[in-house]
Amino acid sequence: MSEPLRIGIAGLGTVGASVARILADKAATLTAQCGRGIVVSGVSARDRSKDRGVDLSGAKWFDTPAEMAVSGEIDVFVELIGGEDGPALDGIRAALEAGRHVVTANKALLARHGVELAETSEDKGLILNYEAAVAGGIPVIKTMRESMAANTPSRVYGILNGTANYILTRMESDELSFEDCLAEAQRLGYAEADPTFDIEGQDTAHKLAILTSLAFGTKVASEEIYIEGISNISLGDIHAARELGYRIKLLGVAQRTATGIEQRVHPTMVPLGSMIGQVDRVTNAVAIEADTVGSLLLSGPGAGGDATASAVIGDIADIAKSHPGRQVAPVFGRAATELRPYERAEMTSHAGGYFIRMTVHDRIGVFATLAAHMAENDISLESIVQHGTVNGEVDAPKTVILVTHETTESHVRKAIEAVLEDGHLVSKPQVIRIEPAG
Amino acid sequence: MSEPLRIGIAGLGTVGASVARILADKAATLTAQCGRGIVVSGVSARDRSKDRGVDLSGAKWFDTPAEMAVSGEIDVFVELIGGEDGPALDGIRAALEAGRHVVTANKALLARHGVELAETSEDKGLILNYEAAVAGGIPVIKTMRESMAANTPSRVYGILNGTANYILTRMESDELSFEDCLAEAQRLGYAEADPTFDIEGQDTAHKLAILTSLAFGTKVASEEIYIEGISNISLGDIHAARELGYRIKLLGVAQRTATGIEQRVHPTMVPLGSMIGQVDRVTNAVAIEADTVGSLLLSGPGAGGDATASAVIGDIADIAKSHPGRQVAPVFGRAATELRPYERAEMTSHAGGYFIRMTVHDRIGVFATLAAHMAENDISLESIVQHGTVNGEVDAPKTVILVTHETTESHVRKAIEAVLEDGHLVSKPQVIRIEPAG
Repeated sequence: MSEPLRIGIAGLGTVGASVARILADKAATLTAQCGRGIVVSGVSARDRSKDRGVDLSGAKWFDTPAEMAVSGEIDVFVELIGGEDGPALDGIRAALEAGRHVVTANKALLARHGVELAETSEDKGLILNYEAAVAGGIPVIKTMRESMAANTPSRVYGILNGTANYILTRMESDELSFEDCLAEAQRLGYAEADPTFDIEGQDTAHKLAILTSLAFGTKVASEEIYIEGISNISLGDIHAARELGYRIKLLGVAQRTATGIEQRVHPTMVPLGSMIGQVDRVTNAVAIEADTVGSLLLSGPGAGGDATASAVIGDIADIAKSHPGRQVAPVFGRAATELRPYERAEMTSHAGGYFIRMTVHDRIGVFATLAAHMAENDISLESIVQHGTVNGEVDAPKTVILVTHETTESHVRKAIEAVLEDGHLVSKPQVIRIEPAG
Repeated sequence: MSEPLRIGIAGLGTVGASVARILADKAATLTAQCGRGIVVSGVSARDRSKDRGVDLSGAKWFDTPAEMAVSGEIDVFVELIGGEDGPALDGIRAALEAGRHVVTANKALLARHGVELAETSEDKGLILNYEAAVAGGIPVIKTMRESMAANTPSRVYGILNGTANYILTRMESDELSFEDCLAEAQRLGYAEADPTFDIEGQDTAHKLAILTSLAFGTKVASEEIYIEGISNISLGDIHAARELGYRIKLLGVAQRTATGIEQRVHPTMVPLGSMIGQVDRVTNAVAIEADTVGSLLLSGPGAGGDATASAVIGDIADIAKSHPGRQVAPVFGRAATELRPYERAEMTSHAGGYFIRMTVHDRIGVFATLAAHMAENDISLESIVQHGTVNGEVDAPKTVILVTHETTESHVRKAIEAVLEDGHLVSKPQVIRIEPAG
């Protein structure tokens, strides 16, 4: 049997502690599966004295991740610190320079520095694994970089943020407002004290940027993503969606179009009877559509210490098995030096169906005007729903919902502008894109 | 750049022709991804003159798979012939003896000879890949043998046969009988002229046996599976299922229990709102439940030339990338010599909920007798539904549906026997197991 693989863990929060504990608890089966042992020989974390439920006395403690990275004590640098720069980036750069393989769960860091790190690791023949960075325990990175060789993907989309999905699920199942669900999610530890990153879509965008590169062979372009969060989704939208046969999900979507590649994160209407429509609470899911295989959908836990640790340990085990340590596949599926520049398709050219919810003054001719503005902009309507008065009074504002056939974002924006100019609307209209989904 | 990987394809049916065509069409991107070319240098098929839509003039033709396997022309033997013995087995054995890697899509062969072939390939340091053998284009083999290192699975279940799922989907969506749907599936080419293998569960059983080994580290035991097919599922069962919040699916289930490992294939009630409940038509899905990651679900096309070719080419690409050709993981996730004997849990000890549908004579006291027999056997009832008379006549037989709380198979069998002895039943009762599913 080969020498054990020596790993150094940087960051001993929930995930890091889970990784250390599971490596200890499952040492025997891991050794049987990998043909060699895996030992934690180095650790770097802020608080050395904290009880993490695992005996780390056999590991050497380092003051900084970078010191551990360059020491002779480890073969693999496992980065579980977080943050797109700082000690996480310093540690990974130092590790690659020093010839250590790297495993990371850090999507923000990869979204910003992924191509640079991929070039370095491939240049040096080192492995850079990051299964846990996207969709937690779901093996989507392995699937995209190893199982899609025969495929040219056309679209990748998914529910990539458990906090946002939990809130949308609870709003529907318990008839609660966005604010109440967010407060509950914070109480349960599903949402941070400052939840902006999760509910406004940036976290989803980081993960999407990585999936886009894997799908389309382009450089990671996390700054070029159209982003809308879920904070303005109301219970009224959720009810209307249901009535029309849809459910609202925060999706990240990357799609090849005639004018480039769309990357967009926004609330989306998906069919009620679709599989992705059943993905509830903190569960994540990723769908991949490609020419050869057709459609795949993978779902599972998107976060949590153990589920994330499962992905991290899978990455470590792949390194242990591939001794003397060859990258089975390039970091982003093809050589980092051959990744093409990202060609952005503008959001205004996005084609699809739209749900438009408007509260209008109850005046003669308002509906005719709305319909005329849609027609002027070549928008054909699939359905029109009028929801009676808002509060039961005669002459009180009425809710009108339009569902369009396929049109473009620019047509919809122009039509909405025209409607706004007429002054018939009581408040800002709600526009939610409809996504075909299996 | 390394020398190209030379593959020999044995069997040029739908899948084999797709593999050859896609390898030609996508040669450039495959070379970029793998860092080396992949060329079809050998072919063995019955009919040399048939037009398969791909130019195979550069490949050497062999009269038998075994001759191709031992020739110096190939590095990888790709077996797409089918059949659990005969030329497929001869070819694979010869290839491994001659030091060639093997890729196969043959579940029947692996279900019978998998352990022997795994021992040979591991002994010789050769790769034996078989992603396409289970659930077609879904990367379930890779997930189970490479991504679950930190996990001890407790249950694996799935929709593993597209023909059966197509029939069940159509019965529900179009109110058609089993026979009509089967005839339609045959017209569309989804079912064979002799559909027994698909609809009676044997095909599902072969795939399940492979998943069981991967999940539990036991020797493949395809002969020790409890099997019931779907040919006795009626439209009445499907209606009743829906009314109770379930959908009927043919599942293969492998589950660790206190007395051993259950392997069972049977029609199953899954919750209407579950993800697996939305898997329709010829789509397949596999769910994996394990201690560390929790629950994963993978779905996608279970058959079809291109979808299956996608999996086969992914396997070939893994070999191309891992040059000089090291098995990344043992064939069944751990060394074949260390697979434990399969310990069968008897079906009679299966614990779960049951749906029991009976047509009874409309006599005074019948319901009381039914209820008494359930109680005598410690079966507690979750719901009782009586469906009025079968044909509207007074005194005509009535349909009674019982849904039990968790009980055991042996209790249910005893209760049914007792009911049958009473002579109140007009026909054989229908018993369908309820499976908790996400």
